[in-house]
Amino acid sequence: MQLYSYFRSSAAYRVRIALNLKGLSYEYLGVHLLKDGGQQLSESYRALNPTALVPTLVDGDAIIGQSLAIVEYLDETHPQPALLPADPAGRARVRAIAQTIACDTHPLNNLRVLKYLKHDMQVSEDAKNAWYRHWVNLGLGAVEAMLAHSPATGSFCHGDAPGLADLCLVPQVANARRFDCDLSAMPTVQRIDAACRKLQAFELAAPDNQPDAE
Amino acid sequence: MQLYSYFRSSAAYRVRIALNLKGLSYEYLGVHLLKDGGQQLSESYRALNPTALVPTLVDGDAIIGQSLAIVEYLDETHPQPALLPADPAGRARVRAIAQTIACDTHPLNNLRVLKYLKHDMQVSEDAKNAWYRHWVNLGLGAVEAMLAHSPATGSFCHGDAPGLADLCLVPQVANARRFDCDLSAMPTVQRIDAACRKLQAFELAAPDNQPDAE
Repeated sequence: MQLYSYFRSSAAYRVRIALNLKGLSYEYLGVHLLKDGGQQLSESYRALNPTALVPTLVDGDAIIGQSLAIVEYLDETHPQPALLPADPAGRARVRAIAQTIACDTHPLNNLRVLKYLKHDMQVSEDAKNAWYRHWVNLGLGAVEAMLAHSPATGSFCHGDAPGLADLCLVPQVANARRFDCDLSAMPTVQRIDAACRKLQAFELAAPDNQPDAE
Repeated sequence: MQLYSYFRSSAAYRVRIALNLKGLSYEYLGVHLLKDGGQQLSESYRALNPTALVPTLVDGDAIIGQSLAIVEYLDETHPQPALLPADPAGRARVRAIAQTIACDTHPLNNLRVLKYLKHDMQVSEDAKNAWYRHWVNLGLGAVEAMLAHSPATGSFCHGDAPGLADLCLVPQVANARRFDCDLSAMPTVQRIDAACRKLQAFELAAPDNQPDAE
């Protein structure tokens, strides 16, 4: 398998964690989002992934974009250890937590959006940072409520093994810290983030440990 | 089952289509996103769904937010007709198309974001509309490329039966039309949207046909 990745992309970070949890080795292909006017915008990368976003997983004939689709694919093709629970209600809960991050939070704050705010809308640095923190606060605040009020929460987001929700949570928390977001009202999010980061699968997937880290 | 919905919410629209395709009846509970300062922000609704977004599906003990998580839950608990193909690569393709809409396009343009741009960032009406069209153009443009260049595309996004990708496509196209986006470069998107809208399951789920339509 090959993974097109950028060390700082939190969507690629999710997939790196999933690959590590599954014990799958892969070739790391760096796509630099800032160099050459954005390597993800090149014709050759767009032919592979028309969204011009990382990550992309190549597994034989399968070429898959979208981090959550990739993680579900890995879970279906390499079932152990499972990244989703077995029961439909549990699976729905885990997917809803993951999507609260991957749909409602991260897409509002990724690089292309921040660039649009700065260059096309010409908003100030302060307004851009306020925007960033606003969506993190709403998104991770909702995740905190989902985790804190449910008996299904364990050492990790769902029970006592890491899975799809956790591998979305950790990269989002890393982004939040990078932008100095206040996480003090989110003790469950912080506890689970810390538990995850003790695991080698998460540690090896961290931005600073990637071959293209700067 | 009960569905908390708002007629104009494209995320709720997706779930309404899924319920109709499965032939499942449900109680429609309107959550007005504009009245009472936004009924989705009420304490009682947030207790049900901490994201303060629609839709929410209640099925016995299961309370599920996030439209894609709901649709996967319905597909697991009521397998026929299937909304995802059987093979992992096909499932990944369908999920990637769905997520290109549900993660990369729609969250940038939903009501709370447009409100933030207008009230908190005080951008002009023109700048807000340019923002809207920019993300529709990128998102649906990527979907067009994914559809037009793949032999897996049939009468619908994947083969000749409607599924998860189609039920994301149609509400996004409806939004695009509402904001006068130019879809002329997206013939495959337009063709599949038209094919879907001929089906009763899609027609009955349309915003204008909901009990809370205005």
